[in-house]
Amino acid sequence: MSLEFDGPVPLHVQLKQILRDEIMNGYYKKKIPSERELMEHYSVSRTTVRMAVSMLVHEGILEKSHGKGTFISNVPVQDWLGSFSSFTETVKNMGMKPGSKLLYYGKKSIPEKIKQVLEVEEFYLIERLRFADDIPMAIEKHYYSTEIGNELEKYDLDSAVLYDVLESSLGINLWKAKQSITSGQAIEQDSKCLDIPESSSVLLSERLIYDPNGKPIEFLKSIFRPDMYSFNIEMMRTRE
Amino acid sequence: MSLEFDGPVPLHVQLKQILRDEIMNGYYKKKIPSERELMEHYSVSRTTVRMAVSMLVHEGILEKSHGKGTFISNVPVQDWLGSFSSFTETVKNMGMKPGSKLLYYGKKSIPEKIKQVLEVEEFYLIERLRFADDIPMAIEKHYYSTEIGNELEKYDLDSAVLYDVLESSLGINLWKAKQSITSGQAIEQDSKCLDIPESSSVLLSERLIYDPNGKPIEFLKSIFRPDMYSFNIEMMRTRE
Repeated sequence: MSLEFDGPVPLHVQLKQILRDEIMNGYYKKKIPSERELMEHYSVSRTTVRMAVSMLVHEGILEKSHGKGTFISNVPVQDWLGSFSSFTETVKNMGMKPGSKLLYYGKKSIPEKIKQVLEVEEFYLIERLRFADDIPMAIEKHYYSTEIGNELEKYDLDSAVLYDVLESSLGINLWKAKQSITSGQAIEQDSKCLDIPESSSVLLSERLIYDPNGKPIEFLKSIFRPDMYSFNIEMMRTRE
Repeated sequence: MSLEFDGPVPLHVQLKQILRDEIMNGYYKKKIPSERELMEHYSVSRTTVRMAVSMLVHEGILEKSHGKGTFISNVPVQDWLGSFSSFTETVKNMGMKPGSKLLYYGKKSIPEKIKQVLEVEEFYLIERLRFADDIPMAIEKHYYSTEIGNELEKYDLDSAVLYDVLESSLGINLWKAKQSITSGQAIEQDSKCLDIPESSSVLLSERLIYDPNGKPIEFLKSIFRPDMYSFNIEMMRTRE
């Protein structure tokens, strides 16, 4: 990619966008090239390079290490806990473009645990691969009662924003959620979808959403690429 | 281990404790033996077995799966986010015994990132292996300014509850924390300490604690066994 030297977009903004795309696509491994290399490669001034880089530092995509160069921060998507959001909302908050690809939908009756959690005899699964700026980030398995599943099925599940449909179209009040976060090892199918080596470490989350009457509405199991996703929170100290 | 049939402790409580220790020590892999097997092995009634097992289900250590048996829940230690606690407090809240072993203490000047985060030129590291009921659960790397580190050094770092010392003895107000959670692959040294296979998935956390003036007090990097530790939170829905 090259810069438009007579276009309306300032050079440092163009350079920033190019570097950002290259970083997100895994073009660089740990570091970006030196200032001098970037100046020569893109035929721009040191000032332009510095402005572009410092914008990416500010966005949390790069980190400067004194005397060692500029490193790629590990985790572009920050999921802020404290209130719960959909993947779509989380990715939009990062200034990235959300996307999804339907992997499975339909009724199921195993695993047993899902039936216990949702308090149903049979359930509905919608499994999607989720993207941020076209990079695979997560696999989300949404479990619902068959009643809700049959309604959701009427929408285009490849692109539907499920929480919008639940809240706006089905009039369901997504009130409270209990979430648990740990990690595990990717199985073959998941690692293929997420484009990571088999047996890689993956970040795992389980979340149960209730309506205001305490009725379980959705159980969500998510598998995240840990190099691309983190959970974040600000907390006060417990006083006892 | 066997039961005391003429002791003061009810049989189901004794059996519960034995099963709990066996589970926590990894004696069983995924399931515990059937009711009949436990009855025969410990020479107790079905009622005793059921009471012991249902206490462990209630504690979240076991899960029953209809027609398939009783499974070991993955994650005994639940770290509830929302307010921040020390490892000692978290483990005590689970009804388990906290423990620690000092791995390293002293001044350091790399990695660079720590200096930036703590806003210092040199820092102090206290690295400890943490236990719950004598099972290795986590490696905690506490980073402080050298000023604080020099004070902490006066205590027995193998057993000191660092937040107690900071708050009660040094009069530091641990006010607010920013925490980030993701996962990664264990390196050789960490996997040995945690008694897990090399390259296992580990749960990773970084937390920066500030005093009420916004001055960074502690940066904490933790590595958790994901089969033993999870982060948990209850949240309301974001309204926009």
